[in-house]
Amino acid sequence: MFLKNAWYIAAWSHEIGRTLTQRWIAGEPVVLFRKEAGEAAALEDRCPHRRAALSMGKLIGDTVQCGYHGVQLDCSGSCVRIPGQTTIPPSMRARAYPIAEKWQWVWVWMGDPALADEALIPDFRWNDEPGWVSTGGTIEVKANYQLLTDNLLDLTHETYVHAKTIGNNAIVEWPMTHRTEGSEVHVQRIMRDTPPPPLFAKVRGTEENIDRWQTIRFQVPANVSIEARGYPAGSEDLSQALRWFSINSITPVDDGSCRYYWTITRCFGQEDEALTELIHQSIHATFMEDVAILEQQQLMIQTDRADRKEIGVRADAGSVAARRVLDRLIRAEATSAATHGGEPALATHA
Amino acid sequence: MFLKNAWYIAAWSHEIGRTLTQRWIAGEPVVLFRKEAGEAAALEDRCPHRRAALSMGKLIGDTVQCGYHGVQLDCSGSCVRIPGQTTIPPSMRARAYPIAEKWQWVWVWMGDPALADEALIPDFRWNDEPGWVSTGGTIEVKANYQLLTDNLLDLTHETYVHAKTIGNNAIVEWPMTHRTEGSEVHVQRIMRDTPPPPLFAKVRGTEENIDRWQTIRFQVPANVSIEARGYPAGSEDLSQALRWFSINSITPVDDGSCRYYWTITRCFGQEDEALTELIHQSIHATFMEDVAILEQQQLMIQTDRADRKEIGVRADAGSVAARRVLDRLIRAEATSAATHGGEPALATHA
Amino acid sequence: MFLKNAWYIAAWSHEIGRTLTQRWIAGEPVVLFRKEAGEAAALEDRCPHRRAALSMGKLIGDTVQCGYHGVQLDCSGSCVRIPGQTTIPPSMRARAYPIAEKWQWVWVWMGDPALADEALIPDFRWNDEPGWVSTGGTIEVKANYQLLTDNLLDLTHETYVHAKTIGNNAIVEWPMTHRTEGSEVHVQRIMRDTPPPPLFAKVRGTEENIDRWQTIRFQVPANVSIEARGYPAGSEDLSQALRWFSINSITPVDDGSCRYYWTITRCFGQEDEALTELIHQSIHATFMEDVAILEQQQLMIQTDRADRKEIGVRADAGSVAARRVLDRLIRAEATSAATHGGEPALATHA
Repeated sequence: MFLKNAWYIAAWSHEIGRTLTQRWIAGEPVVLFRKEAGEAAALEDRCPHRRAALSMGKLIGDTVQCGYHGVQLDCSGSCVRIPGQTTIPPSMRARAYPIAEKWQWVWVWMGDPALADEALIPDFRWNDEPGWVSTGGTIEVKANYQLLTDNLLDLTHETYVHAKTIGNNAIVEWPMTHRTEGSEVHVQRIMRDTPPPPLFAKVRGTEENIDRWQTIRFQVPANVSIEARGYPAGSEDLSQALRWFSINSITPVDDGSCRYYWTITRCFGQEDEALTELIHQSIHATFMEDVAILEQQQLMIQTDRADRKEIGVRADAGSVAARRVLDRLIRAEATSAATHGGEPALATHA
Repeated sequence: MFLKNAWYIAAWSHEIGRTLTQRWIAGEPVVLFRKEAGEAAALEDRCPHRRAALSMGKLIGDTVQCGYHGVQLDCSGSCVRIPGQTTIPPSMRARAYPIAEKWQWVWVWMGDPALADEALIPDFRWNDEPGWVSTGGTIEVKANYQLLTDNLLDLTHETYVHAKTIGNNAIVEWPMTHRTEGSEVHVQRIMRDTPPPPLFAKVRGTEENIDRWQTIRFQVPANVSIEARGYPAGSEDLSQALRWFSINSITPVDDGSCRYYWTITRCFGQEDEALTELIHQSIHATFMEDVAILEQQQLMIQTDRADRKEIGVRADAGSVAARRVLDRLIRAEATSAATHGGEPALATHA
Repeated sequence: MFLKNAWYIAAWSHEIGRTLTQRWIAGEPVVLFRKEAGEAAALEDRCPHRRAALSMGKLIGDTVQCGYHGVQLDCSGSCVRIPGQTTIPPSMRARAYPIAEKWQWVWVWMGDPALADEALIPDFRWNDEPGWVSTGGTIEVKANYQLLTDNLLDLTHETYVHAKTIGNNAIVEWPMTHRTEGSEVHVQRIMRDTPPPPLFAKVRGTEENIDRWQTIRFQVPANVSIEARGYPAGSEDLSQALRWFSINSITPVDDGSCRYYWTITRCFGQEDEALTELIHQSIHATFMEDVAILEQQQLMIQTDRADRKEIGVRADAGSVAARRVLDRLIRAEATSAATHGGEPALATHA
């Protein structure tokens, strides 16, 4: 069960062009492309005629021609040509998905098009903010997407999984606070006068103690931005701080796999390409440490009794709150669909 | 659900000899071999004793000795020896399948042996006809076998899938006719004064317009012969025509995969081995273009809602008629099995 | 359905040390390690917190620290630390499995710990007996574990599967006897004045006829020791005999796969390392012949109708008796679990 009335990242903007690209999102195949004028478009990747994958066809102007029997569909999913006949049955149409481009990514709305509101795209402004520079990537993970949001909402794992880069013993010693606001969850941990983790020391060129701030913001369905700050201990002087945003958005492929889109975007050493490269390699390696843990965790959950309870700890508070928000929205969608005879839910997230 | 009272190709004649060969047909494992006198035989590839694969055993005269505990079965499936004992329980027997060799292929009857009538083997005489020469092959396809018969019964796809060889825009502009006769479906398209597709031009050595005839004959469960003719436009002169039969028979392996047996058999340039090779390579490459489309189509069908309707077009008429004929026979078999206490159906195809 | 109140081999003793090792046993993931003092320990390989695989964590003294969020568990499965908090909920505990080391192997008890009695570990003393030398290995098999015990309890298959090493035609000509004693099954075949199989002739350096004894002992769930003797025909002189024990224990991984632990242990030529190597290579090759047969047999059973009956032969008597014993114990466990509200069975095997 996925939240349908939601924006999911389908691709990086630079990945979509005048060729047809297939992506699976929340269990559905989607074909993506750009119109001649440059605007991105998305259709269900099944021809309404015989369900051939439209992504194996070709673009003719702003239409997709199915690669099997030549049925031609425009960006609204309407059929504009059936070879060998002049009448076109109105039912010959593919589902078109609302699409938006923001923060370097192409977002697709998987639910009721009438509810697709770009204001619901999560606030990842730091990817594009003047004076900031970002680096990022995509990782395919064989685990349920919520295992990744759990991961990002409880950073105590950095101590155990990421001791080589962003983790150290300080993290688990400081408490977290969290609050839920509408469909958002906010988590914060402030660690004072504490040794910097290895990557911070490397990037800042000093082992001196820092005040370390982690400010996490969760937005449904699976978007997590983390503002990381490392001040010289006691200074609260942003001009001397390491400060970056770790932007994360996870798109479910199906129940047991997902695509993890990430950036690190910073407001210091913006011209320093070697620094960008160092951060990119270090963070990619760090996230691959998570992937190893999460893929085994996925296996252990899949093979366990379905009714088995996990035992909570205090540090779960943020991730539990986020799951509660998302579960509530998914249940509301199901109820609304039942009430409205199968139509998507009308409620928005806020 | 497969039609059981039907002949399916198990192998090319040259593939079966004095070694045991395993083939899966319509969900059942079959072991094939030749008797000492040369006649082909087929048993269920499960020893009645412990269900070891008989194909891992060995031939002793005209019997198969199971490779596990030595149980020995003759070509009728009767047990002729159990090591270590003299009594043989009558229930110790394997299923034997009626078998026939025709048109270079070994055919197996998967239903009630009493109904196995060689007259029901489809008419693929052109594979063996004096004055004709054929070339062909086998392709394993990860798609339901009916997606291949659909494909062969609507050749408008040549325009989109096979533009490099046998397709061009002319095809979709000309109408098809079709008729159902008993359990056969006949489809025809005649295209007049039209440019030849690339492979025809290459084979005939001229780009001049042709009258192009496609005459398709479907025989259950999944046999399609296509007579292709390319006359000099307006001539109807067979002596100057490119003329070949495309013979196709698809054997289901299971619901999601099949083996596709094909030949092209022609009555011109019979001695020209380079021409044979050109046709073989071109047609194999052409069919692999289909395979790419069909395997994605299979995935899209498998992952779609089961109740979702496809939207028909005029060119589907032949394939829809063929599915109707086959569905009727499969339903009749199921009804008959229910009425006759599990026995295979008595009705024949005609 | 596996017998839970039973010892299963988890590993060779030499495989377990101060690193965490994952093994799947009877459908459950188990993490194995040694305490600082050398004693082996086993926990369920799922952290009670979030079900991460404990085997990806690390050993800290005699505790396992989960590699995800640092939850620390001792060898009884009790939690001794949760990072970031001082209270530990009593429910934060992992299942600990009774463990024993015997006959070079580490055994794990998969049922009610209160019933774990080391006296129930099968009698494989010959692996360790003074004056005896053993060689052995592990083979991963994609087949249900009972197909292997069936195999070992009917050695007529040696004639057909192992004609290169331990099989010849003599075997099937001599009758077997069998008897069930409590939860054990004993099978014996004595072949008099018979040619030795190829491996015996090679090891003994003579083709002269022998009296060949096979004395098989089955102990639940899947333990089979085979005493093989080859006397000079008529002598019954053990001092001149080839005599070894073939010790076999099969641990189910899941319904369709298992790990097969084996040794050959002998009381002649104990110092002859070339002989040890010859026996090791020959027996490994011999067992791989079984694996090829059994993996196809598994496929044939899995794809067959569930209600289909196998047809018995006289030589099945031992394996049928062993299945009967095991089925009775598994049913008793299920009944006891139902009666005692889900608790493991109280009955022991004897």
